[in-house]
Amino acid sequence: MFVVKVGGSEGIDYDAFITDLSNHNNYIIVHGGSSELNQVSTKLGHPPKFVESVSGYTSRFTDRKTMDIFNMIYAGKMNKMIVEKMQQININAIGLSGIDGRLIEGKKKKSLKVIENGKKKILRGDMSGMIEKINHSLIELLLQNGYIPVITPPAISYEGEAINVDGDRCAGQIAVSVKADQLIILSNIPGLLKDPLDESSLIKNIKIEDIDYNIQNYAKGRMKKKLLGAQEAINGGVKKVILGDARIDNSISAALNGKGTIIE
Amino acid sequence: MFVVKVGGSEGIDYDAFITDLSNHNNYIIVHGGSSELNQVSTKLGHPPKFVESVSGYTSRFTDRKTMDIFNMIYAGKMNKMIVEKMQQININAIGLSGIDGRLIEGKKKKSLKVIENGKKKILRGDMSGMIEKINHSLIELLLQNGYIPVITPPAISYEGEAINVDGDRCAGQIAVSVKADQLIILSNIPGLLKDPLDESSLIKNIKIEDIDYNIQNYAKGRMKKKLLGAQEAINGGVKKVILGDARIDNSISAALNGKGTIIE
Repeated sequence: MFVVKVGGSEGIDYDAFITDLSNHNNYIIVHGGSSELNQVSTKLGHPPKFVESVSGYTSRFTDRKTMDIFNMIYAGKMNKMIVEKMQQININAIGLSGIDGRLIEGKKKKSLKVIENGKKKILRGDMSGMIEKINHSLIELLLQNGYIPVITPPAISYEGEAINVDGDRCAGQIAVSVKADQLIILSNIPGLLKDPLDESSLIKNIKIEDIDYNIQNYAKGRMKKKLLGAQEAINGGVKKVILGDARIDNSISAALNGKGTIIE
Repeated sequence: MFVVKVGGSEGIDYDAFITDLSNHNNYIIVHGGSSELNQVSTKLGHPPKFVESVSGYTSRFTDRKTMDIFNMIYAGKMNKMIVEKMQQININAIGLSGIDGRLIEGKKKKSLKVIENGKKKILRGDMSGMIEKINHSLIELLLQNGYIPVITPPAISYEGEAINVDGDRCAGQIAVSVKADQLIILSNIPGLLKDPLDESSLIKNIKIEDIDYNIQNYAKGRMKKKLLGAQEAINGGVKKVILGDARIDNSISAALNGKGTIIE
């Protein structure tokens, strides 16, 4: 059993990704939709706002209006696009957000501590949070009955509010909860690069004890969260995490065959 | 067991509708999103197009781009809004479109025969179809495990393409497939009116043998499809269909207590 996370950066070849799915079985899909959300929210007159946390992570400021558009893109357009394409090649996919059946539950952040123009600041009105619980019995119920789950943020708070959670960490938590052997995180880069501008600087293997070093020294932007997701997965019992390239044909098979950055 | 269809016309009080849900159990929700879709597709520069079929029914012309926005609104915004609000009052809702797990399967129309400016015309490129099959075992699986299904179009064709199907008829077919006793169709009117401009002209009871007469003489626009959905439900074994008002408090309870148009 493996969990594969795909998207939501630009340049991902979803058709190739889905075609490759028919070469595999016993898996769960988690997807994003970030780049699509940026485009549509801008078109709808509510452009994205990103903030930098005091600990150095960049994240989306998700007010209520952004959350509505988030649901439109992640749970609507992207999720159903993937499910439809899977159904076209006779894979019985079923799409769910973390709200559905409290699939991904977590704690809503009370406020965001961010850095703006070099100054610390407290932001309120953000609907984001930290994943604490996966309803793995729902995932298992679907798998046992022949359905392939296609899962997307948002998650849900204990109070029942939609909360934005990171898709990569979400995939990591799901992998832990269903006791997956492997987690594949596919994006629009070949893996972790020493130099983000040089794709030949790929780091092929990372030992789990060296992951903090790699986060601090090589991971930029969203890659930091991918490594954090990988770390949480391995610490939770997943044997292997592969950061692979979603722009190529047979991206899943390639990752499973060792292409990309392997974390063990 | 009853099936309740709500939306997607303007003026519906979803908060009141969802609050009323806690007074009931053993039900399935089907919802629409038409009016919201019109607004957002216009904002996104792809305004809705409606056509009149040769048999006198008005329907949306659903090209691929419209279908993407359809998924955004129905499966994304509306479905997750309802699921989230239900979760807030501790109802363990799970939202699904007809694509998911082939929940609502049907035949895609090859072409649309329409009337434009008084002339018959054949339109192609429309992604709409007729429901033929409900995956009731998926609905029952969820119900048996404590989840309340919240179901939305689109449906899926046998070839795996998303198809636009009418929400009211969809609710009717679902009611038949799960052997529901009652089907409630809530909209922004009190029921079937003899005179659409006079809410006091409500027709309180319709016998199933008189439904064709009522479709021809009193039903206008979308009300025709509601009556068609009701007819299909009763012919399929549902005992009672109620056309009720979704603009009022306790709209479900009111309908179950006989407010609206009752078809038996």
